[in-house]
Amino acid sequence: MSRGKFITLEGGEGVGKSTNLQFITQWLADRNIPFIQTREPGGTPLAEQLRELLLAKRDEAVDPTAELLMVFAARAQHLAKVIIPALERGDWVICDRFTDATYAYQGGGRALDRALIERLENDVQGDLRPDKVLLLDLDPQIGLQRAASTGAADRFESEQLAFFHRVREAYRERAQAAPSRYAVVDASQPLVQVQQQLGQELQRLL
Amino acid sequence: MSRGKFITLEGGEGVGKSTNLQFITQWLADRNIPFIQTREPGGTPLAEQLRELLLAKRDEAVDPTAELLMVFAARAQHLAKVIIPALERGDWVICDRFTDATYAYQGGGRALDRALIERLENDVQGDLRPDKVLLLDLDPQIGLQRAASTGAADRFESEQLAFFHRVREAYRERAQAAPSRYAVVDASQPLVQVQQQLGQELQRLL
Ligand SMILES: Nc1ncnc2c1ncn2[C@@H]1O[C@H](COP(=O)(O)OP(=O)(O)O)[C@@H](O)[C@H]1O
Ligand SMILES: Nc1ncnc2c1ncn2[C@@H]1O[C@H](COP(=O)(O)OP(=O)(O)O)[C@@H](O)[C@H]1O
Ligand SMILES: [Mg+2]
Ligand SMILES: [Mg+2]
Repeated sequence: MSRGKFITLEGGEGVGKSTNLQFITQWLADRNIPFIQTREPGGTPLAEQLRELLLAKRDEAVDPTAELLMVFAARAQHLAKVIIPALERGDWVICDRFTDATYAYQGGGRALDRALIERLENDVQGDLRPDKVLLLDLDPQIGLQRAASTGAADRFESEQLAFFHRVREAYRERAQAAPSRYAVVDASQPLVQVQQQLGQELQRLL
Repeated sequence: MSRGKFITLEGGEGVGKSTNLQFITQWLADRNIPFIQTREPGGTPLAEQLRELLLAKRDEAVDPTAELLMVFAARAQHLAKVIIPALERGDWVICDRFTDATYAYQGGGRALDRALIERLENDVQGDLRPDKVLLLDLDPQIGLQRAASTGAADRFESEQLAFFHRVREAYRERAQAAPSRYAVVDASQPLVQVQQQLGQELQRLL
């Protein structure tokens, strides 16, 4: 029994992560590939409670390091209870956001020290990294317009546009630094073209 | 304006931390020393929500690293919003539990790597450490009997006795390693004697 593949979907607000997650899981189901679909922050009852605390708009300003540690706390729980057991039993894991989002939002958006994020990544994940990061790249102005149609803004979605430009830049830098692990998809294209490209990337992983 | 003193109260379940906190704050009030009284995990609205998640009994086993990161997330928030501002305006800070409890519970009790705790301590606190740790030392069997009278057991209080022996041992080791920063008080004594000793320790800090 070989280990499953670990695929993450990344990108800013409204780039189409949730939409394309459905396409990917259908693609896997059509090929009888066993998988689980999950998301971050979240993926277990405790981690989803941490997600609620992270996303809630609140009077209290949230310290960026506190936010970072909450994200990794949820991730440690998610890895231990869901992701690692799934990969070990041979399932593919399709995850809506993972550690690249931490580098992008807490590192890029909040300007936290990348070295601190890297230490936590190593402490929490050991040497586990996604086999492929599907990065949906889009001008944040367009993404935020798309996202505005899907409900009230949470604490992150309420940030200023400059925040989301830093998020996008941080994502792109990570993809440039390790091109073999990333597939950067132009998310301004019509969905059918986005999904054609996603299908090609998945095919390569087989 | 000089920086306030940072005093923490430590020890296992039922050693008398909350009881003696009242004595200490009265001692300070009698001498017109400005202070705030707080606790960990907790001390801000967000940190108190994290406390609730940490203490709740749940079906899901909590990953020890996730627990550790939640503790330090709450601490980062508490430091930024409450402890550091208080010390900087010259108030003393009297805190029911702090990082020694992390070394004792997550390090001793859960057997997590002390080096990981130390990295997080440095990342979250910089070089801030308590000026004095008041460690109430007591046989856990007696402490648990005392604590049983104060309400339903939380997730920590529901641990086995061996867990609390490791907690006590970890506390004592930390005090032995840095005797000038710790005052170890025999908490099996009658309260009046415990408090006489606490008063002497406070007097030395003036
Ligand atoms: N390529 C695309 N072209 C146009 N609209 C899109 C495209 N991809 C997604 N959308 C729409 O944008 C909105 C946000 O998509 P969603 O999948 O929720 O984004 P995310 O999960 O990345 O925040 C949805 O209304 C979705 O239908
Ligand atoms: N020195 C002491 N001798 C006897 N009982 C004590 C002593 N100190 C505290 N207690 C009692 O033990 C119980 C637990 O004390 P508490 O202050 O809540 O402990 P902690 O906060 O350390 O868990 C309380 O009922 C308290 O009155
Ligand atoms: Mg989404
Ligand atoms: Mg108490």
